[in-house]
Amino acid sequence: MKLTLIGSGRYLPERIVYSHELDEKFGFDHGETEKRTGVHKRHFFDQGTSRLAKQAILQALADADLTYQDIDALICASGTFEQPIPCTASLIAEKFLTENHPIPCFDVNATCLSFLTACDIAQAFLATHKYKKILVVSAEAGDDALNPEAFESYALIGNASAAFIFSTEQETTAKFDLDILSSKFITYPEYAHDAEIKAGGNGLYHPEQASDRYFHMNGFNLLKSVKHKLPAFLADLYALGNVAVTDIDFVVPHQASGAGLMLASRLAQFKAEQVVNILSETGNTIAASIPYTLDYLLKREKNWDQKIVMLLGTGAGLSIGGQILRVRKR
Amino acid sequence: MKLTLIGSGRYLPERIVYSHELDEKFGFDHGETEKRTGVHKRHFFDQGTSRLAKQAILQALADADLTYQDIDALICASGTFEQPIPCTASLIAEKFLTENHPIPCFDVNATCLSFLTACDIAQAFLATHKYKKILVVSAEAGDDALNPEAFESYALIGNASAAFIFSTEQETTAKFDLDILSSKFITYPEYAHDAEIKAGGNGLYHPEQASDRYFHMNGFNLLKSVKHKLPAFLADLYALGNVAVTDIDFVVPHQASGAGLMLASRLAQFKAEQVVNILSETGNTIAASIPYTLDYLLKREKNWDQKIVMLLGTGAGLSIGGQILRVRKR
Repeated sequence: MKLTLIGSGRYLPERIVYSHELDEKFGFDHGETEKRTGVHKRHFFDQGTSRLAKQAILQALADADLTYQDIDALICASGTFEQPIPCTASLIAEKFLTENHPIPCFDVNATCLSFLTACDIAQAFLATHKYKKILVVSAEAGDDALNPEAFESYALIGNASAAFIFSTEQETTAKFDLDILSSKFITYPEYAHDAEIKAGGNGLYHPEQASDRYFHMNGFNLLKSVKHKLPAFLADLYALGNVAVTDIDFVVPHQASGAGLMLASRLAQFKAEQVVNILSETGNTIAASIPYTLDYLLKREKNWDQKIVMLLGTGAGLSIGGQILRVRKR
Repeated sequence: MKLTLIGSGRYLPERIVYSHELDEKFGFDHGETEKRTGVHKRHFFDQGTSRLAKQAILQALADADLTYQDIDALICASGTFEQPIPCTASLIAEKFLTENHPIPCFDVNATCLSFLTACDIAQAFLATHKYKKILVVSAEAGDDALNPEAFESYALIGNASAAFIFSTEQETTAKFDLDILSSKFITYPEYAHDAEIKAGGNGLYHPEQASDRYFHMNGFNLLKSVKHKLPAFLADLYALGNVAVTDIDFVVPHQASGAGLMLASRLAQFKAEQVVNILSETGNTIAASIPYTLDYLLKREKNWDQKIVMLLGTGAGLSIGGQILRVRKR
């Protein structure tokens, strides 16, 4: 399936928490937090998803040389949300109210893999000519859901946003031609509770324990699930696209964790130079992680004559998702 | 765009609250609640979205003469959720764990119009041959988010679930041919806060007032927004499909409220016999409302030789969505 990228952008909020600031809190020697997590710093944004999303959208619009009025549909692809009602995409659109440009706005949620799912949807909408220019934005704001006592998640998660504007092959202002060679997404619900927030939905609206509102992850089980499921998943993904691991120029992984990236790279036999690893600079930014890393790569590399890029990640659910794209600068 | 419906199902949970039970609570004469809202009863389900969704899915699978193992993708299209993380679709898939059939699971959220948006997505995925059999389920559970002091919403909202299994034209076991003549969805964010839950997302994670966790709606403003936006929206929807209001056999509206249905019918010049109004029996069941009503209609009517059906609704955001379908029984 062929489409184009007109522009993309990313944003890291200003408030920084360095890993060495966490060492004392968790009773560690200086440097231990960074050593254990692979994260040097993470950024936080305290004003809600929609304002954070707006920053990345402004970057993407500037990159595309477009205005908000050129956009036909807005998909918010985040693992967390600003309010339970309405959907976050509406609240993002509210930040562009002065543009007086009402468009379809909805959310897609596949936790950390929301961007991949939104890309699948955008690709299908473009192929069927439903919309011409689709804005996909992933933004994750706020550290309120992090349990300050839980090292495993508290030291790992950060905030960021990233936005992509996709269009059809016919779009003359596009920067990149994208050819989706392969796309696959599978949910393995036996691991559904290994990364979760229990309370806040209709399953447990008024919890007795405030801690049930915190994010909880079982990193050991999550790594085990990757070990069990990733090899067969990748074999299918390659077979679908008739691609070999050695054909791949760049792997853009969800920056899940140091241990996760290491395990996935070992299982998949990626070489270090294939993998775009920016975990140290951002932490795990949930659904913003893959598009943020992809935008970083698109701007870091100068030669986009014809490259094979694989987007790959895991998300709470537990889901594994991947896309293999041929990327060519116009 | 052409697709097929293999089967559909709906479910109303057992716990019933009659409107006359609310009269005393709100200091009304007997019958006043029903008179004001148009709702005779509403049903509630206290065990979370995923179990409620399962009931409708079982009905849809039976209707389709399929098992869960025949499904290629599961989209949860609800306005509320069971847990903030992971997405509700994963938790629904968990209820079918013994089937040992891992498939893609994700959520789509356009509040009350989530089903319409998921249908757009399912249609595009079927047209591009991404999946062959797509299960879309909308389920709304729990009355915990309703403010017991707020008559306007407390007396209106109910729970229900409904599930649809869509496939391609080529599907030999399909029951109905569906031809999408027109589909439109627009968000008007100037009304974003006229129906909302303020607290629980990263906008306001730990509210000082517990009441910020309750659903709040400004019915007057919502009606005003419909009055301002619906006529032009409908004109576009008809023009896209080259359809006149008199061509429509059945209007399946979001059962928003008695006043909302009355206003929309007047603005749109629907005749009473065109509109499928089951508000009295269910209340406003959020995103489950449109698919529940559509399944009810499909089973109520015996003659499906060739009928024009319009799905139409408004949702928090504020969004208006509509689809006009030609429905023919095979």
